[in-house]
Amino acid sequence: MKNKIDAAIIGATGYAGAEIVRLLLGHPNVNIKILSSKSYAGKTFSEIFRGFKGVVDDTLVSEDLEAFSRDCDVIFTATPQGYLSTLMNTGILSNAKVIDLSADYRIRDVHTYEKWYGITHGSPELLHSAVYGLCEVYRDHIKNTSLLANPGCYTTCSILALYPLVKEGIIDTDTIVIDAKSGTSGAGRSAKTDTLFCEVNESIKAYGIGTHRHTPEIEQELSVASGKNVVLNFTPHLVPMDRGILATSYGKLTRDISYEDIREIYDSYYGSENFIRLMDKGVFPETRWVYGSNFIDIGFTLDERTGRVIVVSALDNLIKGAAGQAVQNMNIMFGFEEKAGLCGLPVFP
Amino acid sequence: MKNKIDAAIIGATGYAGAEIVRLLLGHPNVNIKILSSKSYAGKTFSEIFRGFKGVVDDTLVSEDLEAFSRDCDVIFTATPQGYLSTLMNTGILSNAKVIDLSADYRIRDVHTYEKWYGITHGSPELLHSAVYGLCEVYRDHIKNTSLLANPGCYTTCSILALYPLVKEGIIDTDTIVIDAKSGTSGAGRSAKTDTLFCEVNESIKAYGIGTHRHTPEIEQELSVASGKNVVLNFTPHLVPMDRGILATSYGKLTRDISYEDIREIYDSYYGSENFIRLMDKGVFPETRWVYGSNFIDIGFTLDERTGRVIVVSALDNLIKGAAGQAVQNMNIMFGFEEKAGLCGLPVFP
Amino acid sequence: MKNKIDAAIIGATGYAGAEIVRLLLGHPNVNIKILSSKSYAGKTFSEIFRGFKGVVDDTLVSEDLEAFSRDCDVIFTATPQGYLSTLMNTGILSNAKVIDLSADYRIRDVHTYEKWYGITHGSPELLHSAVYGLCEVYRDHIKNTSLLANPGCYTTCSILALYPLVKEGIIDTDTIVIDAKSGTSGAGRSAKTDTLFCEVNESIKAYGIGTHRHTPEIEQELSVASGKNVVLNFTPHLVPMDRGILATSYGKLTRDISYEDIREIYDSYYGSENFIRLMDKGVFPETRWVYGSNFIDIGFTLDERTGRVIVVSALDNLIKGAAGQAVQNMNIMFGFEEKAGLCGLPVFP
Amino acid sequence: MKNKIDAAIIGATGYAGAEIVRLLLGHPNVNIKILSSKSYAGKTFSEIFRGFKGVVDDTLVSEDLEAFSRDCDVIFTATPQGYLSTLMNTGILSNAKVIDLSADYRIRDVHTYEKWYGITHGSPELLHSAVYGLCEVYRDHIKNTSLLANPGCYTTCSILALYPLVKEGIIDTDTIVIDAKSGTSGAGRSAKTDTLFCEVNESIKAYGIGTHRHTPEIEQELSVASGKNVVLNFTPHLVPMDRGILATSYGKLTRDISYEDIREIYDSYYGSENFIRLMDKGVFPETRWVYGSNFIDIGFTLDERTGRVIVVSALDNLIKGAAGQAVQNMNIMFGFEEKAGLCGLPVFP
Repeated sequence: MKNKIDAAIIGATGYAGAEIVRLLLGHPNVNIKILSSKSYAGKTFSEIFRGFKGVVDDTLVSEDLEAFSRDCDVIFTATPQGYLSTLMNTGILSNAKVIDLSADYRIRDVHTYEKWYGITHGSPELLHSAVYGLCEVYRDHIKNTSLLANPGCYTTCSILALYPLVKEGIIDTDTIVIDAKSGTSGAGRSAKTDTLFCEVNESIKAYGIGTHRHTPEIEQELSVASGKNVVLNFTPHLVPMDRGILATSYGKLTRDISYEDIREIYDSYYGSENFIRLMDKGVFPETRWVYGSNFIDIGFTLDERTGRVIVVSALDNLIKGAAGQAVQNMNIMFGFEEKAGLCGLPVFP
Repeated sequence: MKNKIDAAIIGATGYAGAEIVRLLLGHPNVNIKILSSKSYAGKTFSEIFRGFKGVVDDTLVSEDLEAFSRDCDVIFTATPQGYLSTLMNTGILSNAKVIDLSADYRIRDVHTYEKWYGITHGSPELLHSAVYGLCEVYRDHIKNTSLLANPGCYTTCSILALYPLVKEGIIDTDTIVIDAKSGTSGAGRSAKTDTLFCEVNESIKAYGIGTHRHTPEIEQELSVASGKNVVLNFTPHLVPMDRGILATSYGKLTRDISYEDIREIYDSYYGSENFIRLMDKGVFPETRWVYGSNFIDIGFTLDERTGRVIVVSALDNLIKGAAGQAVQNMNIMFGFEEKAGLCGLPVFP
Repeated sequence: MKNKIDAAIIGATGYAGAEIVRLLLGHPNVNIKILSSKSYAGKTFSEIFRGFKGVVDDTLVSEDLEAFSRDCDVIFTATPQGYLSTLMNTGILSNAKVIDLSADYRIRDVHTYEKWYGITHGSPELLHSAVYGLCEVYRDHIKNTSLLANPGCYTTCSILALYPLVKEGIIDTDTIVIDAKSGTSGAGRSAKTDTLFCEVNESIKAYGIGTHRHTPEIEQELSVASGKNVVLNFTPHLVPMDRGILATSYGKLTRDISYEDIREIYDSYYGSENFIRLMDKGVFPETRWVYGSNFIDIGFTLDERTGRVIVVSALDNLIKGAAGQAVQNMNIMFGFEEKAGLCGLPVFP
Repeated sequence: MKNKIDAAIIGATGYAGAEIVRLLLGHPNVNIKILSSKSYAGKTFSEIFRGFKGVVDDTLVSEDLEAFSRDCDVIFTATPQGYLSTLMNTGILSNAKVIDLSADYRIRDVHTYEKWYGITHGSPELLHSAVYGLCEVYRDHIKNTSLLANPGCYTTCSILALYPLVKEGIIDTDTIVIDAKSGTSGAGRSAKTDTLFCEVNESIKAYGIGTHRHTPEIEQELSVASGKNVVLNFTPHLVPMDRGILATSYGKLTRDISYEDIREIYDSYYGSENFIRLMDKGVFPETRWVYGSNFIDIGFTLDERTGRVIVVSALDNLIKGAAGQAVQNMNIMFGFEEKAGLCGLPVFP
């Protein structure tokens, strides 16, 4: 195995793409070789993201997946939904490993993908070879894949919160409600009236109620965990802040169980994980405590009055919910130390 | 009935108190006679709230409920929990009408109050004569009371959202989850590290999970509506914005019913209300659209996949959730036009 | 004179346009007859600005200045720079009074306009008949015009702050530096990457340094006041908030003068004004105290160490800096009470 | 020289103190041995700053400067103004090096300190041995001191912006106006009504006009640079954001000089600096591009109309303006690589 690999980033001038750049700059085993951007090809990266001035002054190039696959060991794709699926083929995947931050290879069932996304999938024949990159759950599969479907931001926050409870049959999956709240960077960097400062600031709204595309992704993974078909409510909200997702998840307990017993289950699943932090009893995650880091914080309570467990989880949507998890997946795929490049602590305030 | 009444405001330098001042200044039937503040007695009101400079330069006085009741027709009390209950008596109530923005007279069962608030109630004998001032539900009782318990901000937003559905038995009250989000003005104006700008900004958190004091108030009213004991989950969240509450409420349907049928129920309850606005199908409230106004906006969807109705409601916590509803209650109590002083439209952005 | 006039608003779905709607709804002498929008013609106003739901559900129409002038008494134009000048003619002005919120008729010298704006003026022959609508300075001229050039937001804040000092020769106009800070609503509502939430939030920047178009407007008016050609530095900054402009202005004193003497000058110019509030000694304006109102607050200090006077002024850029001043101008032009429709107090927080 | 030193941080639970902890955790040559906090002694650090959970769970201890000096090689003091000067003595300084983030040893003239701070200095006899730690200016002196006065946040941003121009006599020091804007973390973490979220959010204000304590510090250093007594205007403003300082500085040119000539001067002073970035012509700093990093960005323009140079500078007040510069000073004092621990790139958004 190489000790130093070359990386290309397609979609480098989106928020997640730029965050991959930032993380890889601190990675001992990666050389950033190609930065690609549709909107800004020909400009330098630091003209667009000026924080990198003097650090990454490389010129952005147009996308050329085939060529990049010959020149690089790994390609990160932070591209619009549906785009990558039309370009991908086994030739590319035999040249380089691809870590896709779009949703194109996340949903195993192509009909579900096409229904929720309203897009015809361009390469359904590759779906079976893609691995869903939820690191803490699929670590062993991730090691051996060339096509990594990096999970969504909301989905990472939601699935990791509920996975042990669903897997262990502690909660009735028919009663699951996930009420999630996200900062605005999740809406991307393209110009839209809806995400202007004055439209987002000083307000909160729900959106995609009953229809958000992350729903089938969460359901898919919790169905696998529970062994039966999970259908649930997932409601995202837009919060006037840059980064951070907080998910508040509710489910009825299936049996009499103590807080400590549930805590033991979480410990057994996540106790040795680098990036999952379990909160002490009575303490709940807040997005400020994970900003800028690859941590996901999880806390829960047992409400005896209603027989529900309420799990609160928080992550930085651009890191553990996107770029950080992508780098973590890369580390697993290439046999690097799993924490490499991901040791940045939360920045507060 | 008098056409012009004199008002005292106790706790005038809190956010809700000051908002009462602002609203009453535009009220044709009210003269603000006394402004009282514990923290700032001796200073002028406009020294503390400088927006009122040249408009309300009156000096703040110390609280003297007895005296105020002799000099005024109505007293608004925006005081800490438990404080008013120790001062109140029938003599005061025979002199003047009292509109209390604290929780002291909201909970009909004194044991429930004392358990959730951890406070000994100072005048439980007055609880039966207090009226819970949810205007659109208790209008007839409000007309005749001297002791008005103005509802909480979260509770107004939550109860009005669910009341028609619970009253009509459309949703299974055992399945109700209310996930609420509030701006920071709800946390008050006293100096606390937790509500410093840098602690609140760029973050969202849940708090009081399973223990928030507005829970029994919501349960009380939905129990009355349903005719049985309602126990539910209410989870508040702190959002980095000044004002606004958004409640996202979930409940399983008890029977097969169409969106249009539910809409008809809402219309029959709220169709002629001045301050409740029902959103068109597919449109959901956002707090920015009610900021600065007495409106509560309500929208809902039917999720056929899960059999749940999801109701989203939004209000300005300082107006419909506090000062505005207080003025609306005053209007009902004194026979004024119910909209008087409350016609300010939302200010955006 | 009519007691009730009909108004058209062109550009009603911009931030300033919508604010005119809100203010006129509370105006006793105005009927909003026509709402026009280029981007949203055919939709209802309340679909775009949902705060007006149930209040202004009128359909937006395409711009037709000629027709509007026949149907209305007054037309407010909140249109892009240069647009109105190509449409305007004396026929329109003989039908209706026009209050223009763009810069087209603010700069008396067409060459200056064309140089700073990079636009060819479409009707320079009308410039001499336009009146610059700085209410407190040009009240008498405003009464008699049909073409009112409503001042810019930064310019109103800057000129009113310095006007008495410059007019009285108290400060050396060669030393004037105006450092201004604005909320983001001043950048308008069209979709641009630069004004996305995540690009503006948690940052401050200067822009248009030495080149901002409000510079010649400030210089024009201070030149008139001083009787000589004023050239100054004006630097605007973008602040992560919705509304509000704060201008911090610096100038060397021309002679030995006390704080009290300067205060007397301010009092003599502004002491009887409805909307200019002079702060007490040692108190300085903050934008939160004028948010939502037509007030401009002015405070100053004398720095004896440096021989400079430092004036701080604050206004709500969408009200006193745009829509409010436009309505105030309308009141003067039509002989209404100058405060009509403008009594809304600052909303805080 | 040791390759690994032990550090104590006094005032670790303030914003700057906690940022020192975060930076030192990434420093190859430092072991954090003692964390001290007056307010939270007995609690763990990660209880207060929960982002450090699992990383720094050490218990906070009470301040004991003497003991700390025996156990550690370096002590960082982020203490209230005036406090350290009463504790400091030569014995402590012979045991350990002290890097003081308060203002106690910044002002060389004790009378100036006492006048502006209103505090009696506790150890004026040590002032002559303290070194003002503006790294890029005083690097050689810093190497040899045991008592380092870490510069203020505003002052670092202001002095570095103007230093080359003043030193080279390019601008008339009698005409200097510095208009600075800061995020709210500069106001500290103690509970005050003035810095509550709702009091700061959605507003901007000037404060300390003509009286801010950073004024004499800026004047001191620019006087040294110019060789004559500099008296200037410095006006700070509070901006609704967490971090970042932007200083807009104005000065009249003393002679005819081109943009390029000035640029050459800046290059000659700062061209080889790690942490000072000079912007390209026409580009100006924004605080978002330095957030989370030790960079200070500087851009300028020449306004030929007014004969002024306008310099815009930006830094992260908690890093280059406090903790980062402190670590940079430590690196110089101990002979470590000057960039060690300071390579974190700006985090955006």
